[in-house]
Amino acid sequence: MRIERGFTDRAAGSVLIDAGRTRVLCTVAIQESVPQWMAGQGRGWLTAEYSMLPGSTRSRKPREGRNGRVDARSLEIQRLIGRALRAVIDLKALPEVTLWVDCDVINADGGTRTTAINGACIALHDALGTLQAAGRLSSWPMHGMVSAISVGLVKGRFLVDLDYKEDAAADVDLNVVRLSDGRLVEIQGSAEGRPFARSDLDRMIGLADDACRGIEEVQSGTLTP
Amino acid sequence: MRIERGFTDRAAGSVLIDAGRTRVLCTVAIQESVPQWMAGQGRGWLTAEYSMLPGSTRSRKPREGRNGRVDARSLEIQRLIGRALRAVIDLKALPEVTLWVDCDVINADGGTRTTAINGACIALHDALGTLQAAGRLSSWPMHGMVSAISVGLVKGRFLVDLDYKEDAAADVDLNVVRLSDGRLVEIQGSAEGRPFARSDLDRMIGLADDACRGIEEVQSGTLTP
Amino acid sequence: MRIERGFTDRAAGSVLIDAGRTRVLCTVAIQESVPQWMAGQGRGWLTAEYSMLPGSTRSRKPREGRNGRVDARSLEIQRLIGRALRAVIDLKALPEVTLWVDCDVINADGGTRTTAINGACIALHDALGTLQAAGRLSSWPMHGMVSAISVGLVKGRFLVDLDYKEDAAADVDLNVVRLSDGRLVEIQGSAEGRPFARSDLDRMIGLADDACRGIEEVQSGTLTP
Amino acid sequence: MRIERGFTDRAAGSVLIDAGRTRVLCTVAIQESVPQWMAGQGRGWLTAEYSMLPGSTRSRKPREGRNGRVDARSLEIQRLIGRALRAVIDLKALPEVTLWVDCDVINADGGTRTTAINGACIALHDALGTLQAAGRLSSWPMHGMVSAISVGLVKGRFLVDLDYKEDAAADVDLNVVRLSDGRLVEIQGSAEGRPFARSDLDRMIGLADDACRGIEEVQSGTLTP
Amino acid sequence: MRIERGFTDRAAGSVLIDAGRTRVLCTVAIQESVPQWMAGQGRGWLTAEYSMLPGSTRSRKPREGRNGRVDARSLEIQRLIGRALRAVIDLKALPEVTLWVDCDVINADGGTRTTAINGACIALHDALGTLQAAGRLSSWPMHGMVSAISVGLVKGRFLVDLDYKEDAAADVDLNVVRLSDGRLVEIQGSAEGRPFARSDLDRMIGLADDACRGIEEVQSGTLTP
Amino acid sequence: MRIERGFTDRAAGSVLIDAGRTRVLCTVAIQESVPQWMAGQGRGWLTAEYSMLPGSTRSRKPREGRNGRVDARSLEIQRLIGRALRAVIDLKALPEVTLWVDCDVINADGGTRTTAINGACIALHDALGTLQAAGRLSSWPMHGMVSAISVGLVKGRFLVDLDYKEDAAADVDLNVVRLSDGRLVEIQGSAEGRPFARSDLDRMIGLADDACRGIEEVQSGTLTP
Repeated sequence: MRIERGFTDRAAGSVLIDAGRTRVLCTVAIQESVPQWMAGQGRGWLTAEYSMLPGSTRSRKPREGRNGRVDARSLEIQRLIGRALRAVIDLKALPEVTLWVDCDVINADGGTRTTAINGACIALHDALGTLQAAGRLSSWPMHGMVSAISVGLVKGRFLVDLDYKEDAAADVDLNVVRLSDGRLVEIQGSAEGRPFARSDLDRMIGLADDACRGIEEVQSGTLTP
Repeated sequence: MRIERGFTDRAAGSVLIDAGRTRVLCTVAIQESVPQWMAGQGRGWLTAEYSMLPGSTRSRKPREGRNGRVDARSLEIQRLIGRALRAVIDLKALPEVTLWVDCDVINADGGTRTTAINGACIALHDALGTLQAAGRLSSWPMHGMVSAISVGLVKGRFLVDLDYKEDAAADVDLNVVRLSDGRLVEIQGSAEGRPFARSDLDRMIGLADDACRGIEEVQSGTLTP
Repeated sequence: MRIERGFTDRAAGSVLIDAGRTRVLCTVAIQESVPQWMAGQGRGWLTAEYSMLPGSTRSRKPREGRNGRVDARSLEIQRLIGRALRAVIDLKALPEVTLWVDCDVINADGGTRTTAINGACIALHDALGTLQAAGRLSSWPMHGMVSAISVGLVKGRFLVDLDYKEDAAADVDLNVVRLSDGRLVEIQGSAEGRPFARSDLDRMIGLADDACRGIEEVQSGTLTP
Repeated sequence: MRIERGFTDRAAGSVLIDAGRTRVLCTVAIQESVPQWMAGQGRGWLTAEYSMLPGSTRSRKPREGRNGRVDARSLEIQRLIGRALRAVIDLKALPEVTLWVDCDVINADGGTRTTAINGACIALHDALGTLQAAGRLSSWPMHGMVSAISVGLVKGRFLVDLDYKEDAAADVDLNVVRLSDGRLVEIQGSAEGRPFARSDLDRMIGLADDACRGIEEVQSGTLTP
Repeated sequence: MRIERGFTDRAAGSVLIDAGRTRVLCTVAIQESVPQWMAGQGRGWLTAEYSMLPGSTRSRKPREGRNGRVDARSLEIQRLIGRALRAVIDLKALPEVTLWVDCDVINADGGTRTTAINGACIALHDALGTLQAAGRLSSWPMHGMVSAISVGLVKGRFLVDLDYKEDAAADVDLNVVRLSDGRLVEIQGSAEGRPFARSDLDRMIGLADDACRGIEEVQSGTLTP
Repeated sequence: MRIERGFTDRAAGSVLIDAGRTRVLCTVAIQESVPQWMAGQGRGWLTAEYSMLPGSTRSRKPREGRNGRVDARSLEIQRLIGRALRAVIDLKALPEVTLWVDCDVINADGGTRTTAINGACIALHDALGTLQAAGRLSSWPMHGMVSAISVGLVKGRFLVDLDYKEDAAADVDLNVVRLSDGRLVEIQGSAEGRPFARSDLDRMIGLADDACRGIEEVQSGTLTP
C-alpha cells in the first residue's frame, strides 16, 4: 500500500492511494455551509461521494450522469465511506462547514471501497490541517485513524484484501471498518455464494482486525515525516 | 408478528406482514424471461425492489418517481433483500423465469428491511407453489426459511427488533439474516453513534440468532395448516 | 364495496377500499405548509398522487421511479382525484396546510381511479377529523361526500363499474364524479373503439347517477357508527 | 379560425392554425415502423405529442426537456389528441407506418387543445395524401373530419371557445370532440369552481355540437379548392 | 432572407425568419429577475435556448423532454446564440431583468444556428422596445446589429450559407458571428472531413465578412419603416 | 508539459498529462462493437467523454450524475475532443471497434480541453498499439499527432496557454487544434468581453501555430524511447 499526499492542489486534501493494482484518488473539499437540516447548530458535517472512472475497469464502465442511470452500488459505498469517516471526527469541533470527501477509482482490482476509506482518512487529515492553519479550529477534531479491509472465504481458504479475481470467486465477502483503538465502526458480511457459520465469521473478523492494524501503521507512517 | 397470505390475487405470491406497528406488503411476480446476461443458461433469477409508500411515515415521504430523485437507502435495502432470498433458493432448479419480489412499506415503525425479508420469504414460497402447481418445477427449489432481525445497543442496553424511537437512539444497529440451519447470509453492523467493541458484536449476534429462531417458527407455522 | 378505516396509523387518514377485486390504499397526510403560489392567503390546499404497485397487475407493472420513465396515465388520474376532492371541501376553511392524498393501487381489476376517489373521500374525512380534534378548524370544511363510477358500452350493452375484462372490451368508457347533492364534478367519456351517439351518453350518465347514489350510501354508512 | 396548409415542407403534413389569438403548428411525420407491440399485424398506428413553446405565454413557460421536469398537463392533452385522431382513421387501411402528430403551441390564448385537434385533422389529411400519392394506400383511411371545441359556464353565462381570461374565470370547462356524422369521440367536463347540474351539462353539449358543425365547415372549405 | 416581426403577441419580441427553406421562430421574453449569482448588481442578463421542433426535419426528430435524453448539439448552439446576443447589448444599461431568447427551428435546411442569431437580433430589438416604451431604459442598450453566416469548403469549392445537402458534403464548416462595425464575436471552424490550410481559413473568413454585411442590410431594412 | 504513459493498467491506453497546474487523466478503452448506424460497414469509430472531477476546482464542482443535471460545457468539450482525434486516424483502417476516449480533469487551472486533446492523442496511440500487438490492424491508422492550444487577448496583451486567472480576464479566447502537417482541424474563437478585429485573429492563429509545434515535439519525444 502506497499513499501520496498532495497529489493535486485545488482540493484542501488530496491523496492518491495504491493498494495492489487498485488506485483511488481521494480529495476533500471544504464548503462554507452545512445542510439545511443542521444549519445554525454551530457544528460541521461530512459527506462522501464515490465513483469509478470509465477507464478503471477492463470492460469500460459507462460514465455516470450521461444516461440518467444511477449506480446503486456506488451510492451504497459512498454512504459507507461517509459513516466511516464521521466516526473518526468530532463534528461539534468543526466550524459550520461541510467536508466533501470524493473518492474516484482510477484503477480497479478489488477492494476499492476499503482502499477509498484508507486514503480518504489521510486526505481528511490534510483538509483539517488547512482549517487549523487558518485558525478555524479550537481543538483538533480527529481522534486517531480509521482503516478498512475486506476478508473473504474463497474455496475454503480465508483471504485478506481480495483482488478482483479472488473477490469474484469468494463465497463470503466481509468488510470491516475499524478505529485505531480497536473498536469497530462497520461490519458488512455477505454470502455471495454459500452461507457461513458463526465460527467462520469469528475467524474473518480476527483476520480483519490484524490487517487493519497494519494499514494503520502505513497511515501513521505517511503522516510522520 | 402476524403474516397474512394471499392478501391480493394478481401476484403469484402476496403477503401482508405486521411486526409491531410496521406493516409491509410483499408480492412476488413471475416474469417469463431472465436478464440478458444469463439468458439461455436454463436457470432462473430473483430480484427485489423495496419502497416506502408516502403515507407510511408520520411526516409524508415524497413519492419516488415524481421528482427525478433516487432514494439511495431504498436501493441499498432492496439489494440486501435480493441477496437474502437468493440464498434460500436454488436458481438452477428454476425454469428461465425472473421472480420479482416487491416489498412496499405501508406503515413504518422500525425494522422495515428485516420485516420485508421475513414476509417476502413466505410470498416467495407461495409463488413457487404456483410454479409447482403448473408442473414447471422438477424439484422444490427452496431449502428452508430465511429470517432477519435487527439488534441494537441503545444507551448501554441491548435491544432486539427496534422500533423507530429505539432505532433513532441506538449507538449501534446490527441487521442479521439467517437460514433455518443456523448459517448466516448477511451481517450488517453500523455504529451510528459510538464505535463498538468486539465483545458487544458477539453479544448482539447471539441475540439475533435467538430472535431469528423465533421468527422462523412463526414463518413455519404460517405455512402449516 | 368494503371500506376499512384506520388501516395504518402513521397517516392522518388511512382507508383500505375494496370494490370487486380492486383494492386501493388511500392515505391523507397533513403538511404544515402550502405551495408557494398561495402562501400567506390564510387557506389550505389539497393535492393527490396515484400509483399502481408493481404487484397489482397480472403482468408485473415496472415500478415508477426506478427507470426515469413517467407514467402519463397515472399523472392524468391523480389530477382527476385532486379536482374531485377539492370539489367537496372548502379550502378557505382550512388552516395553511396541504392535504396530501395518496392512492396506491394494491390489486387492480378495473375502476381503480373511481375506487380511489371513493376511498380517498373517507380518508380525507378522517384526516380532517384529526385537524378538528386538534382545534385547528373553526368550521367543518367538508360538504357531503364525493363519489365516482365508470360506465361502459360493451358490445351494445350498458355496464356499470367495469372490471378489467369488460373495460378492455368496451367501445365507450365514461367516468363520472358526483357530489351528494346530485351535481357533477367531472365527466370524462372516451370512445376507445366506436364513437357514441348523444343518446348513448345520456343513458350512461343516468346509470352513473344511480350507481353513485349507492356508493354514497356505503360511504355514509362507513362513517356512522 | 384560419388554417394555412403546407406551412413547412419537411413534414408530410404541416398546418398553421389560428383560432382567435391562439396559434398552433400541427405537423404529421411518417415513420416507417410501428410500436413493437403491434408489429407484423399489417396495420399502422397514430400517436400525438403536444407542447407549448416557451414564448407562447405572457409569462415565459420553461422549456420541457431542459430541467428534467415533465408537464403532466401536456401529456394528458397529447393523449386526448391521439385518441381523437385515431377515431377518424382506419388503422387497418394504413401500411405499417406510424403517423406522428406534433402540435406545438406558438401563441396561447385559450383553447389550445381543441385548436390543436382542429388543425391536426387537416395536417393528417395532407400526410395521408402523400402516402396515397406514393401508391401506398389501397383505400382512403380517413372517414370525415374530427373537430373539437370548449364550452364554459362563466359567471352564469354559457360561452363557446373560451379565451384565456374567460377560461380562468370559468366555473365549468367542457371539451367535446365530434365526428362529422355527429357522433362523439370524447367529452371532458370539469368543474373548476362550482359543480354543475345535469341540465347545464346538456345545454353545454348542445352548444358544443353547434360549434363543431361550424368548425367542420371551415375544415372542409380548407380542403376544397 | 425574409424577416416577419410581431409573428406572435405573447412574447415581448417575436420574429419569424426564413433563410432559404430554413425557418426559425425567435421570441424574447422578459423575466423580472436575474440569476442568483448576479442579483443586486443593478444590471440585466440575457440567456438563450435553441431547439428543433419534431416536424422540422425530414426524418422526425424525437421531442426533447419526453425521453430524458439531452441534445448536446442544441445546448452547444444555444450557448453560441447567447454569447452572440450578449455581445451586442450593454447588460449594465438594462434593469434587473433576464431576457430569455428562444429559437425554435420550424423547418430545417441548413444554417439553423446562424439564422437563429439573425432573427433573434431583431426580436431582441423589439423586446427592448417594449422596455423602452415602459420607461424602464435610461439609454438604449443595443449597439448595432449582430449577424451570422456559415461558409463551407465543399469538394474544393467555397460556398456561403450552406443548405442541408451542401453542409452534409462539406469538408470544412465555418460559422462566423460579426458586429456591424466589422469586429468578430465568434468564429467556429470545424473540419468534418478534411483538415484545412491556413489560407483556406483566410478565404472563408473573407467570404463570411461579405455575407454578414448583406444580412445586416436586411436586418436594418426590417427595422426601418 | 509532462506526459506519463501507462498511468493505469485496466484501459488499453492510459496517460496522465500535466500542463502547468492542469492535470488530466486520459484513458482509451476498446469496445468490440460500433454504434448501430454504422454497423456492418467494416470500419471503426471513436467517441470521447470529458468530465471534471469534483475535487479538480477550488470551489468543489458538484458531481455529474448525482442530481440529474447535465453540464452543457462538458458535452461541448467532449464533442470537440472526439472530432479532434477522429481527424488524426483513419476509421476505415480500424476493425469494427469503438475507441472510447475518456478525459477526466483531476486538477484544473485553465486549458483543460486543450490539455485533454494533447494527452488523449498519446493514449490513443497506445491503445492502437494493443490492437496492433493483437494482430488486428492491417495498417497503422494514425497519421501524425494532433495538438491543441488556447490563445487569449488579455488586457491588450496576447497570451498563450492561459491559466485560470488569465482565462477569466481574457477579452478573447481562441482554441486551435492542429495536425502535424500544419493543417487545422478546429478553430474556436469567442469574444467573452470585447469583440475582436480580423488582425487580432490573424495574430492569435499565428501564436497558436507556433505553440502547437512545441507541443507536438513533447508528444513525439514521449513516444520515442
